[in-house]
Amino acid sequence: MKGVYFDGSKAVYREDLPTPEPENDHSRIRVLYANVCSTDKEILKGYRPQFHGVMGHEFVGVVDKTDRPELLGKTVVGELNEGCGSCLYCRSGREKHCPDRKVIGLDSLDGCFAEYFVEADHLVHIVPDGLPPEQAVYTEPLAAALEIPVQVHMDPRKNVAIIGDGRLAFMIAQVLHLTGAHLTVIGKHREKLDAFMSFAEKTRLVGEFSDPSNAGQTENVYAENAALAHDPDRTYEVVIEATGSPDGIKLAQKIVRRQGTIVLKSTYAGMTEIDMSIFVVNEITLVGSRCGPFEPALRLLQKGLIRFPEVEWHELCDFQAAFSSKAFKAGFHICDQ
Amino acid sequence: MKGVYFDGSKAVYREDLPTPEPENDHSRIRVLYANVCSTDKEILKGYRPQFHGVMGHEFVGVVDKTDRPELLGKTVVGELNEGCGSCLYCRSGREKHCPDRKVIGLDSLDGCFAEYFVEADHLVHIVPDGLPPEQAVYTEPLAAALEIPVQVHMDPRKNVAIIGDGRLAFMIAQVLHLTGAHLTVIGKHREKLDAFMSFAEKTRLVGEFSDPSNAGQTENVYAENAALAHDPDRTYEVVIEATGSPDGIKLAQKIVRRQGTIVLKSTYAGMTEIDMSIFVVNEITLVGSRCGPFEPALRLLQKGLIRFPEVEWHELCDFQAAFSSKAFKAGFHICDQ
Repeated sequence: MKGVYFDGSKAVYREDLPTPEPENDHSRIRVLYANVCSTDKEILKGYRPQFHGVMGHEFVGVVDKTDRPELLGKTVVGELNEGCGSCLYCRSGREKHCPDRKVIGLDSLDGCFAEYFVEADHLVHIVPDGLPPEQAVYTEPLAAALEIPVQVHMDPRKNVAIIGDGRLAFMIAQVLHLTGAHLTVIGKHREKLDAFMSFAEKTRLVGEFSDPSNAGQTENVYAENAALAHDPDRTYEVVIEATGSPDGIKLAQKIVRRQGTIVLKSTYAGMTEIDMSIFVVNEITLVGSRCGPFEPALRLLQKGLIRFPEVEWHELCDFQAAFSSKAFKAGFHICDQ
Repeated sequence: MKGVYFDGSKAVYREDLPTPEPENDHSRIRVLYANVCSTDKEILKGYRPQFHGVMGHEFVGVVDKTDRPELLGKTVVGELNEGCGSCLYCRSGREKHCPDRKVIGLDSLDGCFAEYFVEADHLVHIVPDGLPPEQAVYTEPLAAALEIPVQVHMDPRKNVAIIGDGRLAFMIAQVLHLTGAHLTVIGKHREKLDAFMSFAEKTRLVGEFSDPSNAGQTENVYAENAALAHDPDRTYEVVIEATGSPDGIKLAQKIVRRQGTIVLKSTYAGMTEIDMSIFVVNEITLVGSRCGPFEPALRLLQKGLIRFPEVEWHELCDFQAAFSSKAFKAGFHICDQ
């Protein structure tokens, strides 16, 4: 079969991959659409040198071989993390935190940038009738956005800011504007911010704020407190950091209200220099947030409450173009329904 | 009057300080005992070069001049932060976060390392009958410890660790062991840890853990997850960082359970290098925590539920010895009752 394979150092398009056979409690899925996530690009940069296998973890497909008749022929999406099933985390419904977990397209399991792949049955979710596959493929990133209201009480009176204007920020904004909160999206690119303007109350350029790299010097905290007395910037009760860059957290520290919450959604490799005393002096809560729940994501998609960024579809053999695309969103159209 | 004065670069003992007169809505307090806090030592290191005045912010004293008859002659303790009274934070009961706040002994207001000082009436708390002043002087640090259960739900089933074996850690341990939680105290000094052994379930030396500076390299997170599969170290649902050193947060990242909470209690000047992706991948919540509520602290003290570290009392003129003391706790005995 055709697929995009990571050999430990680079991605390769192959047509000689063996079509996988499902083992017990697993089903085989014929992939219709698969989206490129920034984590896939991180793999190409060396994020997971130990991984060898088919890439990709955002997909929609049709179950074509399974022991479970209720799944056969169904259009499905699926979660990434397959746990051991017996540890503390697996037993408490937190499989994604299993220390022995395998992750499709990222760790020990082949992913979905191929015509077929195999997934554990309990990770599969049936796509509701009427939801087109080109929309269902957004379930995984939308679920990740929904992890925020799982973790943080999104009081609809709140003044909320999202830092970032990429796809992750877009999905988060889609979820948070539905709460009724006052939503500001802060980004570096005027043209990307325009995509948020129809549903966010406000968009702002990062450059409108004073230099965030000076936000946190301990020795200046008190002088700064005085200077910021009536600073309209420090006004957001919840700030979501979704830039994928260390600068985002520093801006978040600068604009979050005292006793407010920063949700850290983006990961980046390596160490960040940060003034931890800001968290203590201003009693900020920082919440790390990763994968989220699929079922509410499917409900919101089915209700038509989620808008979509423009997608640029590619063939698998055209993977270089998909990975390097500057479009808001790029993905693969692999098989027809 | 006598007092310890900070002149912008060093502390000086003076006997020629003017005895202060209380203005409207303020009372004058004759100081009985005052404790040295690590923040006082930070001032000597240059933490607040803009501050000029009498140092000190932990005290117990007797009101000797006031417009409020119910305060006159009473033994009192008092809060540090005097807000503007009209901003968002002051109007929502969060005066300690007022951007225009003044702080006794630290910012714009004379402190309590003197025979007399003046404080706003609304910051004064009457010490309950029967509570000796040598114990009431612990109200402020105990209140800071009580800010933790104000912010974080201390489920008594939880496995809690405190990193630090100094006085702040001691007061936090005093509060947390009362919740019934399983409490482990982790420190660098065996002899200091001994002071915790009668009420903490467990004490451990930092050296028992593998090198925390390697805890957080992003590229190793997944390899490490596998290695830590059955790691008994990553077992604490709540970790309190109270070391006063940047190493504490790194050890906290290493030992906190996935989806657990780190409470950051200590401040230190300057920037810390930290791997922020640990917070995201393991969905850790970090809670910054500062000053806390006085009334519950006085209730716990009055009930005799709080034990005390050994205190070394000094005269004001002997301030160098008090500041450089290696005792668990040093303070000033200023006036007799």
